[in-house]
Amino acid sequence: MAEERVLYEGKAKITYATDDPNVVRLYYKDSATAFDGKKKGTIKDKGPINSAITEVFFKLLEKAGVATHYIDRPSDREMRVKMLRMIPLEIVVRNVTAGSLAKRMGIPEGTALSSTILEYYYKDDSLGDPLLCESHIHALEICSKENLAKIGKTAFKVNEVLTPFLAQRDIKLIDFKLEFGFDSEGEILLGDEISPDSCRLWDAKTNEKMDKDRFRRDLGQVEEFYAELNRRITS
Amino acid sequence: MAEERVLYEGKAKITYATDDPNVVRLYYKDSATAFDGKKKGTIKDKGPINSAITEVFFKLLEKAGVATHYIDRPSDREMRVKMLRMIPLEIVVRNVTAGSLAKRMGIPEGTALSSTILEYYYKDDSLGDPLLCESHIHALEICSKENLAKIGKTAFKVNEVLTPFLAQRDIKLIDFKLEFGFDSEGEILLGDEISPDSCRLWDAKTNEKMDKDRFRRDLGQVEEFYAELNRRITS
Repeated sequence: MAEERVLYEGKAKITYATDDPNVVRLYYKDSATAFDGKKKGTIKDKGPINSAITEVFFKLLEKAGVATHYIDRPSDREMRVKMLRMIPLEIVVRNVTAGSLAKRMGIPEGTALSSTILEYYYKDDSLGDPLLCESHIHALEICSKENLAKIGKTAFKVNEVLTPFLAQRDIKLIDFKLEFGFDSEGEILLGDEISPDSCRLWDAKTNEKMDKDRFRRDLGQVEEFYAELNRRITS
Repeated sequence: MAEERVLYEGKAKITYATDDPNVVRLYYKDSATAFDGKKKGTIKDKGPINSAITEVFFKLLEKAGVATHYIDRPSDREMRVKMLRMIPLEIVVRNVTAGSLAKRMGIPEGTALSSTILEYYYKDDSLGDPLLCESHIHALEICSKENLAKIGKTAFKVNEVLTPFLAQRDIKLIDFKLEFGFDSEGEILLGDEISPDSCRLWDAKTNEKMDKDRFRRDLGQVEEFYAELNRRITS
């Protein structure tokens, strides 16, 4: 067998080519970064936990009719997925104010929103991933109006599926980030991962943070909370 | 007659009460500020120029079916307008990249856009007037979905009316900012001003800036360009 070729190494995952040009293999690392890579560290067992949680979510979403890039999970750190041409947008769905929204609007973190917020960020580290309005996305030809509408609809659907699933496990879905791409047939699929690295997840009873904010904000017990989250979601 | 009461003093205008509770009088000052008030100065005759230009634009827009707060202009620095309950949004329409958009997206200033951009900023100096997505505006109950759609439609209409009017006078309308409010009957009217303080206006032949960027960026000949703009628009 030919040596595996690294297509891309990101902050949390390595993407390898496979024998099939339409399939890539993701390797989930334990390394963690925050604030555009300014803060770096390791969260022990984050790789297996994030890939296990992503697998649960993607299988659940597929059942609910959301097309994802997920194929299978050959080992605890590896996921085979469909090769996508990524759309350079981060789609953020928010049910409760936290993080940048709380800061941007001067609203206390934890304030419930009267309706779900959908945000678009342009995925470009050199520009600091700026927030975009819909018309920016059209005018700058990042994504067509029709495809953006489809993505927005899917993002709301993901929220509708994950919120009750997590509530049953005493977890509040505060907000989450999605990324989408086109497969070889031009279909838009949900890509990347859905994990405590890309979501805010709070304990429903104590409001304790069970996600990457523990690492970002030096709240301690990072690994313990990732492990507890993993138990509640995957078992 | 009773002494006139100042209702509000802003960076460029003073708002006075009148005998009619539904009418206020705006006094256009020569003072100029930029960068959230960090830069301060005076542009000689800015008051009369901006009120004269605003009068021309608002009369033109009224004729085209856009409802504005404009009543009349009793003197060269004064404008009588309908009292509005302002919506705390700055609506920005962009035809060509410039200013914050150029910086935010790393695109050279002066790049034509494939379609018009409509941006929403939350009017709050203490937060630095943050950019908002539509769903922020709904979820944070700043403005209803219906009213926001109406405002967006009006903003595009203003662009359609002003762009050819200015082009006939060898002026390119690069971008502009609008503010809206509710009158005593709950109707949404276009308020504030439309002037070289709130628009980017470039000479169509030379691309020279004829607006407040001359002050913001210390480009010199600020008063000469305001006067030339005034001649082209009001004569």
